[in-house]
Amino acid sequence: MIDADRLWHRLMALAEIGARPEGGVDRQALTPGEIAAWRLLLDWAAQHGMEGATDALGNLFLILPGRDRAQPPVMIGSHIDTQPTGGMFDGAFGVLAALETAAALADRGLQPATDLVVVAWMNEEGSRFAPGMMGSEGFAGLRGVEEIRAVRDAAGVPVGEALDALHAAFPELPHRPLGFPVAYYLEPHIEQGPLLEQENLSIGVVTGIQGKVTWDVAIEGEEGHAGTLEMAARRDALMAFARMAGAMQREVGEADPAVKFTIGMLRVFPNAPSVVPGRVVFRIDLRHPRNDALQAHATKLEAITRDLAAPCRATVTRLVDAPSNDFDPVLRGRIAAAASRLGHGSMPILSAAGHDARHMAPLCPSAMIFIPCRGGISHAPQEWAEPAHVAAGAAVLAEVVRELVL
Amino acid sequence: MIDADRLWHRLMALAEIGARPEGGVDRQALTPGEIAAWRLLLDWAAQHGMEGATDALGNLFLILPGRDRAQPPVMIGSHIDTQPTGGMFDGAFGVLAALETAAALADRGLQPATDLVVVAWMNEEGSRFAPGMMGSEGFAGLRGVEEIRAVRDAAGVPVGEALDALHAAFPELPHRPLGFPVAYYLEPHIEQGPLLEQENLSIGVVTGIQGKVTWDVAIEGEEGHAGTLEMAARRDALMAFARMAGAMQREVGEADPAVKFTIGMLRVFPNAPSVVPGRVVFRIDLRHPRNDALQAHATKLEAITRDLAAPCRATVTRLVDAPSNDFDPVLRGRIAAAASRLGHGSMPILSAAGHDARHMAPLCPSAMIFIPCRGGISHAPQEWAEPAHVAAGAAVLAEVVRELVL
Repeated sequence: MIDADRLWHRLMALAEIGARPEGGVDRQALTPGEIAAWRLLLDWAAQHGMEGATDALGNLFLILPGRDRAQPPVMIGSHIDTQPTGGMFDGAFGVLAALETAAALADRGLQPATDLVVVAWMNEEGSRFAPGMMGSEGFAGLRGVEEIRAVRDAAGVPVGEALDALHAAFPELPHRPLGFPVAYYLEPHIEQGPLLEQENLSIGVVTGIQGKVTWDVAIEGEEGHAGTLEMAARRDALMAFARMAGAMQREVGEADPAVKFTIGMLRVFPNAPSVVPGRVVFRIDLRHPRNDALQAHATKLEAITRDLAAPCRATVTRLVDAPSNDFDPVLRGRIAAAASRLGHGSMPILSAAGHDARHMAPLCPSAMIFIPCRGGISHAPQEWAEPAHVAAGAAVLAEVVRELVL
Repeated sequence: MIDADRLWHRLMALAEIGARPEGGVDRQALTPGEIAAWRLLLDWAAQHGMEGATDALGNLFLILPGRDRAQPPVMIGSHIDTQPTGGMFDGAFGVLAALETAAALADRGLQPATDLVVVAWMNEEGSRFAPGMMGSEGFAGLRGVEEIRAVRDAAGVPVGEALDALHAAFPELPHRPLGFPVAYYLEPHIEQGPLLEQENLSIGVVTGIQGKVTWDVAIEGEEGHAGTLEMAARRDALMAFARMAGAMQREVGEADPAVKFTIGMLRVFPNAPSVVPGRVVFRIDLRHPRNDALQAHATKLEAITRDLAAPCRATVTRLVDAPSNDFDPVLRGRIAAAASRLGHGSMPILSAAGHDARHMAPLCPSAMIFIPCRGGISHAPQEWAEPAHVAAGAAVLAEVVRELVL
C-alpha cells in the first residue's frame, strides 16, 4: 500500500537538515534545524490534506481527519531530534513511516473512522536538554510543563525560551491540550541493536522496553597548582571520578551480561592543564531488562559514589527512574500477523533503548515495530537502515493501522 | 628605597583587568585583557621616563635607559597572563616589583650603568595556548617562531593571529630581536607552596626549578548507543581513561612523596548522555625535583597509557620535557645577603612550579626571589600575598639590582 520510493526520498531529504560536513546529522531538540524540519513535514502533510497542530510542549501533530472527529484518534510516529553526532534514521524513520501510512490512505481516498495523528515528540534524545523523552513525558502528565520549561541547556538557555521560539515560528498552528485521549499508539523505529540483522529478519515485534535509571553526579574537590600542591594534600575531583568510574565498571558494568552501564557525559572545571581539577560533573546511564537487577545495580552505583568520593564530596541526583514495561499483547499479535501476511520474517524483541512509547503505554494500548540497522549501530554518523527494511517497517505499520481505522 | 604603597596600589589596579565577578582574575595570554594590561604598564613606565618595546613573540619590555646603552642590560620581571580562574599575584607581583625597582631608581635620578629592562613574558601559564612559557622559550631559541605561531587555542585561533592583533594594538612600539644579550636575569614570584609561610619567613632564595614533563594523550574508541551496545562489545574511551588514570594515580601519584602528578584537562567526545564516548583527550603534568626519578615516572606513565588502552587505541605526545635546573650561586648569595641587610628572614627553596627563569638560566646568570602566599594556594581566586611580603620581595630585588647596575 505504501510508496517506498517516496518514503526513502523523504528520509534522505529530512537528513539534509542538520547534516554534518563529516557525515551524520546534528539536529538537536528545539534548534533552528528542528524548526526547518517541522516546516518540511508540514509541507508534505499538507500535500495529503493533513492538518498541523502542536501543544504546550512543542510536540508536532500531523492529522489526517477521520469520519468521526470526536473519537480518540490512532496515533503513530516517533521523533525528529537527533544526538549531536546522530544518524539519518533514529526517530526520523518512525515519523516518516507514519507520514507515509497516512499519505497512503489519503492518496487512495480512504478516510479513517477516527483521526489518524502522526506525531513527532519533542526532545526524545535528551542531548541538549536532559533528560530526554520530554514531550511524551509531559503529554502523559508524568512531569509538569513549568518543570520542563525550566530545564536549561549547556549554554544556559531554558526549554521555555526555546519552546516559545519554536511556537513563534508557527503562529498559524492550533494548540491541542496535553494528554488528549488516544485510542492506540504505534511507534516504528530502528532496532539500535544487532539481533534482527543477526537473525536476518526484517521486523521486530517489540515486547517491552528495558528499565533505565540515570543520575547527575557532581564531585566537589579543591583547585590547586599542579606543580606545588603536595599529592597528600590534594582534593582532586578528576582522580575521585577515575576511582568511582573504575569501581562502577568492575562492580556493575562487568557484573552481569544483561546490564548496560555508560558514562557518556563528563565535564571538568576549570579544565586547565596545570590546575588540579576542583569540580567534575558527569551523567550515569544504567539499563537492565529485569527491574530487580536494575534496582540492585542502581543501589550499588549510588554506594560507590558515596564511598569513593573522599577526600572530595559527591552529590548524586536521580534524573530518570523508569522500570521496564510490557507492550500491549493484542497489538503485538497484530504486528506479527501483518508481517507474516506481507511476507516479512519477524521475531519478538526487547527494546534496549528507551522510546516515547514507554510513556504512551500507560495511556492506551501501545506497541513498537523495529527494523534492523547495520551492525546495530545508532547515535553515530554511520547509522544505516536498508531501503528494503525501511519499506517493510512502513508497510507493516500501514497494514496494522488499516485494520485499526478502516 | 621602593614605594610599597605605590606597588600595592598598582597590583590592585592591574587585578581589575580581567577581574572575575566571582573573584580572582581571568586574563589569559593574548586576550583583550592582556592588551589592556599592556596599556596600563606602558602608561606607568612612561611616568618614570622608561621606553616600551616588544619582539616577534609578544614579550613586553619596559626599559630604563642606562649610561652605556650598548652593554647587555639587566633584565627583571615575570608575566601578566593568568589561569582562567587565576589570582592577583601569580606573575603580576614579579612584573610590578620589577617596575617598582626601575621606578625607584628613576625617581631618585639614579641612572643605571646599563639599561634596566622590565619584562612581561608572553603566555607563561599555557592555559589558552599550550604549553606555557612560550615567550621565554622562543626568546631563548628553544622553539621556533613559526612553530609557536601555529599553536591553536580551543576555539581554533592560532597564536600567530592573536600575536598580530596584539602588535596591531601597539603600532608605535619598536621590535627588539629575539634573544638579545642579557647580563643578568632576576624574577620575583609568589612561592605557590606552603614552605615560607610555615617557616614564617619573607624571602625564598630559589635554588632551582623542579623538572617537568607533560603529555597530550588521545584515546580513540568507538561511539555507540548507551542502551543497546553490549558491554563486551564496547570500545569506551572514557572507561579506558578511568583505568589509566586510576593506575597512574596508584603507581606514580602515590609512589613517591616528592612527585606531583596531575591530569588537569580532559575532554570527552561527543559528550552526550546516552552515547558511549568514542574519543577522550587529556593532558598529563608530571614534576619531580630529581631528574632520574622524573624520567622513571615518565616512562611508567607512558607504559600505562600503552598497556591499558585496549580495546581502545591511545596516542601519547610529549609536549614539555624540561629537566630540573640550578640557579646561579653568586646571584643566590646576593639575594640572601640583601634580605639579611634589609632585616628579612630567608631560606633556600626549590621551585615546584615552572617559571620563565628556567629558559633564561642557560643564557645568563639567573635567579628567583620568592615571597610567601597564603596557604600555599595559587592558580585560584583565593590566591593572596600579604602587603608586607610584597614590599619585602620588591625591596630585596631593588637592593640586588642596585648592586648590579649602579
